[in-house]
Amino acid sequence: MSDLITMGKAAKKSATFLAQADTLLKNNALKQMSAALIAHDATIIKANEQDLNAAKNNGVTEVMLDRLKLDKNRIQAMAQGLLDVAELPDPIGHVSEMWKTDANLTIGKQQVPLGVIGIIYESRPNVTADAAALCFKSGNAVILRGGKEAIHSNSAIVLILQTAIEQAGFPKDAIQLITDTSRETARQLMQLNRYLDVLIPRGGATLIQTVLEHATVPIIETGTGNCHVYIDGSADLKMATDIIVNAKCSRPSVCNSAETLLIHRNVANTFLPVIEEALAPYQVELRADSSALAIFKTAVEATEEDWETEFLDFILAVKVVDSIDEAIKHINQYSTKHSESIVTSNYFNGQQFHREVDSAAVYINASTRFTDGFEFGFGAEIGISTQKLHARGPMGLNELTSSKYIIFGEGQIR
Amino acid sequence: MSDLITMGKAAKKSATFLAQADTLLKNNALKQMSAALIAHDATIIKANEQDLNAAKNNGVTEVMLDRLKLDKNRIQAMAQGLLDVAELPDPIGHVSEMWKTDANLTIGKQQVPLGVIGIIYESRPNVTADAAALCFKSGNAVILRGGKEAIHSNSAIVLILQTAIEQAGFPKDAIQLITDTSRETARQLMQLNRYLDVLIPRGGATLIQTVLEHATVPIIETGTGNCHVYIDGSADLKMATDIIVNAKCSRPSVCNSAETLLIHRNVANTFLPVIEEALAPYQVELRADSSALAIFKTAVEATEEDWETEFLDFILAVKVVDSIDEAIKHINQYSTKHSESIVTSNYFNGQQFHREVDSAAVYINASTRFTDGFEFGFGAEIGISTQKLHARGPMGLNELTSSKYIIFGEGQIR
Repeated sequence: MSDLITMGKAAKKSATFLAQADTLLKNNALKQMSAALIAHDATIIKANEQDLNAAKNNGVTEVMLDRLKLDKNRIQAMAQGLLDVAELPDPIGHVSEMWKTDANLTIGKQQVPLGVIGIIYESRPNVTADAAALCFKSGNAVILRGGKEAIHSNSAIVLILQTAIEQAGFPKDAIQLITDTSRETARQLMQLNRYLDVLIPRGGATLIQTVLEHATVPIIETGTGNCHVYIDGSADLKMATDIIVNAKCSRPSVCNSAETLLIHRNVANTFLPVIEEALAPYQVELRADSSALAIFKTAVEATEEDWETEFLDFILAVKVVDSIDEAIKHINQYSTKHSESIVTSNYFNGQQFHREVDSAAVYINASTRFTDGFEFGFGAEIGISTQKLHARGPMGLNELTSSKYIIFGEGQIR
Repeated sequence: MSDLITMGKAAKKSATFLAQADTLLKNNALKQMSAALIAHDATIIKANEQDLNAAKNNGVTEVMLDRLKLDKNRIQAMAQGLLDVAELPDPIGHVSEMWKTDANLTIGKQQVPLGVIGIIYESRPNVTADAAALCFKSGNAVILRGGKEAIHSNSAIVLILQTAIEQAGFPKDAIQLITDTSRETARQLMQLNRYLDVLIPRGGATLIQTVLEHATVPIIETGTGNCHVYIDGSADLKMATDIIVNAKCSRPSVCNSAETLLIHRNVANTFLPVIEEALAPYQVELRADSSALAIFKTAVEATEEDWETEFLDFILAVKVVDSIDEAIKHINQYSTKHSESIVTSNYFNGQQFHREVDSAAVYINASTRFTDGFEFGFGAEIGISTQKLHARGPMGLNELTSSKYIIFGEGQIR
């Protein structure tokens, strides 16, 4: 614990410096961080090999190994990511509103950094540079806690970034990594209330759940996406097929992919066979309710659990509904409030879906796969919030800020 | 626990209804709630007498009794408060931004209710109607948990409000009161994660601390205010005196009153005697550092603890500083990040104070007492947030909302 408190204190001190830093100075540091990653890519690759060897010895899957692996190209991409963040507008200092009160006070609402952000994440080491850059640009100090599988890679990356920001005139403790990857230390981070302004978990459902259970610091819940596509009775067949194939198959392992297809009974007989055929090349397993089961050539019966599961795989739950009301009710009951889409040609049904579906991103006639900071035009993404407090949906630089009221008086008393 | 779960389920269901409710319908209900309070004032006063008698038997102070007491005038004021909330603009449905993405999607960011709000508060029964109205207008269901001293008053008020909203076409469970005022039940409310979207404590430091320690639901920390006034070397004597007297003495029991006076050494000798004289009619106890102690006629020596204490009383800690930097450093170390003010004629010192003081409301030449939802022009206040996540400073209707992205596509896939 004493180590974390030391880190917390150093982070707070750096945060005070960072909050005041000029945009040009921050951008310059980001460019130096980027250049340093490329200049030292051999060091990173060497550290990464240690992680890869350990992972192989532990018999991890090929998919996991691929997530962990860093090569010249991936380091190049990381470095480019830092340059991209340097190009983004600096949210800090922006005054969103300014008004005069009855007492003739002028009040401005100004964006300020959150302070110290904790990020707890899993295997992919590119998150290290990415998260560090976003926190840095938004004027926040960051304490990173990556997975133990990537500890050597993460340590190498953070050391390089720290050296770069120090050379650019910043305290190196603005970016810190917890190198003790024990579960105990992770729990302590979740309760570092005096020093952390917010903790953001990035990873699978288990990680999120652990953080939810143990954190006493404010957290932003991210990521879990049990997303739905509802094909309305008035939907265009080709559009519906394209959207469901894209939402399910373009990248099933990510949170914005679809897990459940709801379809209006009026079009189920015509549409489901076409959709089954379109999904066939991806070998999607269909888990269907009794009505859909009677239509599909090859499907298994869905269980209650299937409606609430984020499969993250080539599996799709399918249910035939009698009305848009039934579809919306199903979604609001089972979804994780991430992203949902209706395919429809009916104006009023689109309006109703927008209004009544209680999720972070509600689509008419588009794939749920667009829920992403880059696709939304934020230029960056630290995660996708599925909670309602502070930030909802894709979080970019703006979502890493708070505000303060600056008030101009001329002697007013109350 | 089973009772709370039943209440949570009913609240969630009501929240779905409320989120869709027309502004006119909500305003109409608020007017009926207002009229019902006046129509049934005798019932409220009778229930309040039960509370007052119990309080007298428990030997509570006159101040507490006065806080608890309801009479025709106070009920009239509560009823007027509901009419005022009806007049405020409805934040729900407002689209703050709308833009086109590279994929030609149109994305709008729309304000939606948070869902179910828990409010845990202390003795004053007028908070019941006030909090219920703000949650209702912003489309949220509310679960109230007031102090046990006011249980009869609160029960009477909630029953009247429930009947009124039911007659106006709303589910009565949109406003619920926990009548079991045991500590155990309060703790259960703090962990009702499945049903509560946020819990807002309103009350003293002990209540806030208890909620911070036990809550697993998202909370908004409110209220504790260790506020500072810094008198700069260039300050106007009369303005400085007026502001410190107002900030300390106009209502010392509230969170936006000042607790510490910092003063630049260059003016300490001239200003402190004048300030001591101005504070004398209020019998303010001065707790001074050694420099100030040497100047004051009557003062005691300040302890380290005094710098971090919210006195909420006619007590003022006073410290002489050598520079604005020392003043800002002291504030950022000891304040609860609520409200701070500089009195200065120097443009650059004002700028520096605004920039470097890390608090919710940072004033130049005005009393800290203005930190208040009504004074800020929000027309209402549910509390003053001293945290950085979600909301900071006075919280009105806007701060009781979240957002969702509504996306208009024409078949886009990624």
